[in-house]
Amino acid sequence: MSLKKISETRMFAGSYQRHSHFSTVNQCDMTFGIFLPQAAKQTKVPVLYWLSGLTCSDENFMQKAGAQRVADELSIAIVTPDTSPRGETVADDENGAYDLGLGAGFYVDATQAPWAKHYQMYSYVSEELPALIEAEFPVTNKKSISGHSMGGHGAMSIGLANPDSYESISAFSPITNPINCAWGKKALTAYLGDNEDAWRQYDSCELIKNYSALSKPPMLVDQGDADEFFPDQLLTQNLIDTVAENNYPANIHMQTGFDHSYFFIASFIEEHLRFHAEYLFAEKIS
Amino acid sequence: MSLKKISETRMFAGSYQRHSHFSTVNQCDMTFGIFLPQAAKQTKVPVLYWLSGLTCSDENFMQKAGAQRVADELSIAIVTPDTSPRGETVADDENGAYDLGLGAGFYVDATQAPWAKHYQMYSYVSEELPALIEAEFPVTNKKSISGHSMGGHGAMSIGLANPDSYESISAFSPITNPINCAWGKKALTAYLGDNEDAWRQYDSCELIKNYSALSKPPMLVDQGDADEFFPDQLLTQNLIDTVAENNYPANIHMQTGFDHSYFFIASFIEEHLRFHAEYLFAEKIS
Repeated sequence: MSLKKISETRMFAGSYQRHSHFSTVNQCDMTFGIFLPQAAKQTKVPVLYWLSGLTCSDENFMQKAGAQRVADELSIAIVTPDTSPRGETVADDENGAYDLGLGAGFYVDATQAPWAKHYQMYSYVSEELPALIEAEFPVTNKKSISGHSMGGHGAMSIGLANPDSYESISAFSPITNPINCAWGKKALTAYLGDNEDAWRQYDSCELIKNYSALSKPPMLVDQGDADEFFPDQLLTQNLIDTVAENNYPANIHMQTGFDHSYFFIASFIEEHLRFHAEYLFAEKIS
Repeated sequence: MSLKKISETRMFAGSYQRHSHFSTVNQCDMTFGIFLPQAAKQTKVPVLYWLSGLTCSDENFMQKAGAQRVADELSIAIVTPDTSPRGETVADDENGAYDLGLGAGFYVDATQAPWAKHYQMYSYVSEELPALIEAEFPVTNKKSISGHSMGGHGAMSIGLANPDSYESISAFSPITNPINCAWGKKALTAYLGDNEDAWRQYDSCELIKNYSALSKPPMLVDQGDADEFFPDQLLTQNLIDTVAENNYPANIHMQTGFDHSYFFIASFIEEHLRFHAEYLFAEKIS
């Protein structure tokens, strides 16, 4: 796999870079962002993967969340994949809907036409991209995962399905139970077909209900109560009930007065980074 | 003057709002942003005015600089005016140039057609907007001013021309000597005509050379040496020489490896806010 550097910008004492590469699983060029803290000049650092929401690209988080200051201080790299495959040959919703197709990959491996050829975001984020990052950058294989809205769903579902790969999981305003909300039903039907059994492997509440792994990456979730998509698309209470009933180690914070925007993420990203640092730098008892 | 609230978003413990109002000096509706820290719920707070650069609106700084965290902590309000008048009746460059007309008011009072009717950004920023802010929001009359690129020029020239109005001045990557760079010559010719004598009242280096006020608001400037517009458009050395020759109290920091982007601003905005706080909260010896 060969990387093509698009840009490199100094931020704080670290470096923010954008790269593109040909993705084998998505069968198209993919662009990602990476922030390398100053510490990466002398040692390997752990990585937080950030998954963005509907309509976003690899850039929104790096421009708006204000995460680099604390990531530099804590010596954590941040990687921001795009939210879908892109390119002329990549299918999009025929009506250009914002919640299906380009910018709306939902972090699943599509099985249905016309999506299956390129929309393999689950495998891209959970396997192909980390392998590339670990081969090409000064990082360890210690990973945590976070995201917003559709990306909060992605972070939780990928983290819960791969508990040995991630030290910790967090989410802002996540779609917690996509099999039961309009955004999720639309996307899962398109990408996976009508058989709802196929949807459950990507549903965070279902993953927690059917959890069997020994390792349980601790989870932190923040949700604003002035969020315009709360509760109908996010179904936060379903997550609250599910973690309680199944003793999953999660802290779910309802934050009064906050909406669904990046201003909410900016307000709490420091807390999330410090949460992940606690586990990324912990010595495992083996 | 009546304010129309466009939006209000919680950020940290404060509130980010956007408002529009009819501007008497610009003869059009103007939009501005204001961040009110939590302290403004119980007391009046001082204000930092932020002037953005070419092509920006009132929104860029609030979305990308990451200033609200520290402003909330320090109990400073931030006000972000737009970078030009806007609207159907407002003249724009006939070729749609990014460096003249809409998004490029240069913080001067235009005297030439077709600009003079609406392009009165100097009076708007130095008089009309602060009067409105002080009448409508829980703020004191203590003000400081900062900005980026064209807005760094605006912050320095407005601050130097009104030293009794501002406690402190700062700038990122400012156009320091517009009468001697291409951006400045183009805009000043268009807005003020060919007589270069009229340009000098808006040129920070000229203002320092001809300084006569007793009060000298302290100044902080940051400039990246990987800035794509450095040195030709910014002429930073001219400012360095001028403050030295005239004993103006300024700290000008050359920062290695940084470019002209908001990633540079984000890296040093905390330092600028703490600099301004020192003077905004100082007791004046009178």
